Amino acid sequence: MRVVTEGEIVLLYLNEKKKWLVQARSGKEFHTHVGVVKLEEIVGSPFGSSVKSTLGFDFHILFPTIRDQILSSRRPTQVLYDKDIGFVLFRLGVTSGSVVIEAGTGSGAMTASLANAVKPEGHVYSYEIRSEFAEIASRNLARLRLEKYVTIKNADARAGFGESDVDAIFVDLGDPWDVIASVHAALKGGHPMASFSPTVNQIERTVQAMKGKFVDVETLECLVRNMRVEEGRTRPATTMIGHTGYLTFARKILERSEPSVRSAT
Amino acid sequence: MRVVTEGEIVLLYLNEKKKWLVQARSGKEFHTHVGVVKLEEIVGSPFGSSVKSTLGFDFHILFPTIRDQILSSRRPTQVLYDKDIGFVLFRLGVTSGSVVIEAGTGSGAMTASLANAVKPEGHVYSYEIRSEFAEIASRNLARLRLEKYVTIKNADARAGFGESDVDAIFVDLGDPWDVIASVHAALKGGHPMASFSPTVNQIERTVQAMKGKFVDVETLECLVRNMRVEEGRTRPATTMIGHTGYLTFARKILERSEPSVRSAT
Amino acid sequence: MRVVTEGEIVLLYLNEKKKWLVQARSGKEFHTHVGVVKLEEIVGSPFGSSVKSTLGFDFHILFPTIRDQILSSRRPTQVLYDKDIGFVLFRLGVTSGSVVIEAGTGSGAMTASLANAVKPEGHVYSYEIRSEFAEIASRNLARLRLEKYVTIKNADARAGFGESDVDAIFVDLGDPWDVIASVHAALKGGHPMASFSPTVNQIERTVQAMKGKFVDVETLECLVRNMRVEEGRTRPATTMIGHTGYLTFARKILERSEPSVRSAT
Amino acid sequence: MRVVTEGEIVLLYLNEKKKWLVQARSGKEFHTHVGVVKLEEIVGSPFGSSVKSTLGFDFHILFPTIRDQILSSRRPTQVLYDKDIGFVLFRLGVTSGSVVIEAGTGSGAMTASLANAVKPEGHVYSYEIRSEFAEIASRNLARLRLEKYVTIKNADARAGFGESDVDAIFVDLGDPWDVIASVHAALKGGHPMASFSPTVNQIERTVQAMKGKFVDVETLECLVRNMRVEEGRTRPATTMIGHTGYLTFARKILERSEPSVRSAT
Repeated sequence: MRVVTEGEIVLLYLNEKKKWLVQARSGKEFHTHVGVVKLEEIVGSPFGSSVKSTLGFDFHILFPTIRDQILSSRRPTQVLYDKDIGFVLFRLGVTSGSVVIEAGTGSGAMTASLANAVKPEGHVYSYEIRSEFAEIASRNLARLRLEKYVTIKNADARAGFGESDVDAIFVDLGDPWDVIASVHAALKGGHPMASFSPTVNQIERTVQAMKGKFVDVETLECLVRNMRVEEGRTRPATTMIGHTGYLTFARKILERSEPSVRSAT
Repeated sequence: MRVVTEGEIVLLYLNEKKKWLVQARSGKEFHTHVGVVKLEEIVGSPFGSSVKSTLGFDFHILFPTIRDQILSSRRPTQVLYDKDIGFVLFRLGVTSGSVVIEAGTGSGAMTASLANAVKPEGHVYSYEIRSEFAEIASRNLARLRLEKYVTIKNADARAGFGESDVDAIFVDLGDPWDVIASVHAALKGGHPMASFSPTVNQIERTVQAMKGKFVDVETLECLVRNMRVEEGRTRPATTMIGHTGYLTFARKILERSEPSVRSAT
Repeated sequence: MRVVTEGEIVLLYLNEKKKWLVQARSGKEFHTHVGVVKLEEIVGSPFGSSVKSTLGFDFHILFPTIRDQILSSRRPTQVLYDKDIGFVLFRLGVTSGSVVIEAGTGSGAMTASLANAVKPEGHVYSYEIRSEFAEIASRNLARLRLEKYVTIKNADARAGFGESDVDAIFVDLGDPWDVIASVHAALKGGHPMASFSPTVNQIERTVQAMKGKFVDVETLECLVRNMRVEEGRTRPATTMIGHTGYLTFARKILERSEPSVRSAT
Repeated sequence: MRVVTEGEIVLLYLNEKKKWLVQARSGKEFHTHVGVVKLEEIVGSPFGSSVKSTLGFDFHILFPTIRDQILSSRRPTQVLYDKDIGFVLFRLGVTSGSVVIEAGTGSGAMTASLANAVKPEGHVYSYEIRSEFAEIASRNLARLRLEKYVTIKNADARAGFGESDVDAIFVDLGDPWDVIASVHAALKGGHPMASFSPTVNQIERTVQAMKGKFVDVETLECLVRNMRVEEGRTRPATTMIGHTGYLTFARKILERSEPSVRSAT
């Protein structure tokens, strides 16, 4: 039975809607609306056990997954995003040892997820034109101890990537069509890319830009619907996220100098 | 530029609806409705290039991801399933080095995906009560060269798992509520499990069985909606998959001998 | 060009999210966060024109449809409900002259919609066991000038309906299975009924209770997804209503004393 | 108990997937894959009763609603469409006595639904530029005995409507933006219109064309998800219709010569 060590990050769970990432630390307290939790009580407690707040409420000490850590990194909008992350990782075939480019680091949620998937032998090159975002992402990656699997480049992806023959590329930019040529140049032949965009117009322009460079182009959106499971009263949840964005997947083909005789569509 | 080697598996792509996993092999032919492809022409061709069939149609030589390989393993129903696989892998935090149990190998699609995620240092223990399914899954894993990361056990998961302190558990059984106690016994404290079930009644009974053993219980379904992207005529696809199954996620808590003073829900 | 008359109800429209049903009345004022609207300015104004508030904001004077009037009757939850109302009216074939029973008046939103659909020659018999709800519904119907097309009965639908050979029946009760026999007794042979229920367990029990009494049983849910339409930036809305309830439709068959030889399903 | 009369149309129901509109007629037979039904046996039978085919299968004699009659009029694609028809009728406030314009008769499914909703005192003016469609729709309306409530005009809606001050307008054209000016001219002030379009680009252009002429513009799509209800095994259906089209609703405002001081959005 593994116990929490000094300085370790845990997920403190009160109920479905109230959970926090906290660091187990002697001499520190965590204040909530249902009392104070002494964080040194967590040090040495087994994962899965609970501690009581000063008002007598139980807080469960849970193991934080990469998802918990990403969703708690002060990026409230990303809460909606895990469905898309998991889907992209699987569709791109990103696995231990993969070398991957990300265009658009943003706050680094996907960067961390990619890093977690390629470790320990793979690597992520993530491009971010805005220096302040590049810095936040670097800090977040360090906190997650994933920084050694990532190179964050404060550069414009449209100018091209410094890498070549990478296994997969993920694009999360406002104007993805502008980097399709760069993506094509850096990706291994026959390998996959993915792009995330909120609007219909973005996917239309992006798919247009892929013509002749990529095949197996597929655009979709992923919707998650929560269920309220109660004995004899189960039903879907009353509200749901209606939209985060569209995902476009495609595979690089080598461009040819001579036209084909026929093509079947 | 990497070229296809003798005996390598590639994804042969004619169009969005016609793609096949084939083995590049001297002296072999692949017959399609638009002509014959000589597979020895593929050997030595770069990934992303194309070959012509005897009727002059272009076939692109693409790199097969784990998803392509799983979805082509003679399990037509699994085509709907990649959204769920990616989501589960990410939510369970399965990563290189993880030790994972699967209850219900089935044809091994999820088994292979788990193996691909935990390699090279992790391991998957997959339980399957039906010996014929255990055998098919073993063969599929060998074909994918993932067999060394998996131990398939032809045993009843309800009788308990031989492993303990595993990082995550995935359940794909008709009666998941019957293995909740086994799952609790084998899982690390505070760590996650997931269960996949097609019917509402299954999720209701499963969630019921989790009471007092698991917290952070969440049931949801993931819907994928394809878009038909055409310049000036973009719209959602006319038909979609309405349902594959519900996913239930939960985290193990240690059971207590004494009741808590209060609880906040 | 029709102008608003003294005492007429209009829909006062500020923007997409701010619209109110108000009565055009000399000497009255309507207070909003963007100024006061003098309601006597509305009297004599043409529909579609606008009035200015004291702070200079334009308010459009719109014609209130039955839907506007229902959704504004102090029943905030019903805002989600118009998709279901329209669908039920059409599926039940409710039209001018129809005689219809409603089991479960509630606040009378569906009652008013049914009345509006059957007028001027048809009639609605609506059963409500809770007298306070029956009274509120009566008041709402009077306000909408639909009271002459409706008889509200403060009675338990489970005890049977006083009417027979009605054209259609709508059920909105917590335990619809308890009134299936009453519904069967009161409905014309071969005619349709509909039932609205939020939970899966309700639809399961209701469909069960229909066996041998109804055919063509179909349960579905209707989801509405809003689009944010902006030039070059169109996308689905970020949030949506995930669930209101399930609709079950069925048609009455006459019960037989002798079993059939065969049946094809 | 009402019995079927000679020449009456009934819905003959074998099972959920096999139902037909047939005319009860002496001396006629109806051939199916499970035997022949003598249609004269239906004449004089009560609605809700059943007849046996020559192979001993039961066929239920059901009362056909307007929906059944529309969906069986040799327009297979319209099967998906009832959700949209019911929603539009309710949102437009179409009721007995309404005067309504339809731009784009097509095969007349919506035309018949509108006619059924406005009868006996209202009227539908339906514009169709293609003469062959205008004729098919006329025949369908006659068969449904709704022809006296409809005037079909074989004319181009873009050239303007011959009517004015109508209560509501429904547009089902490939280029709805081209008729927005005509719609504005013919509609009563403050009254609603609706437009149906399959593609995103259509709604974008249509909403654009409404600026300054309409307010309360809302675009949405309506999705229907069927449930497979079976005791202890209830679940959503495996496949569903992913898309029929988007609905855009709006209300006419009078155009002004002078600009407003402020506007709140």
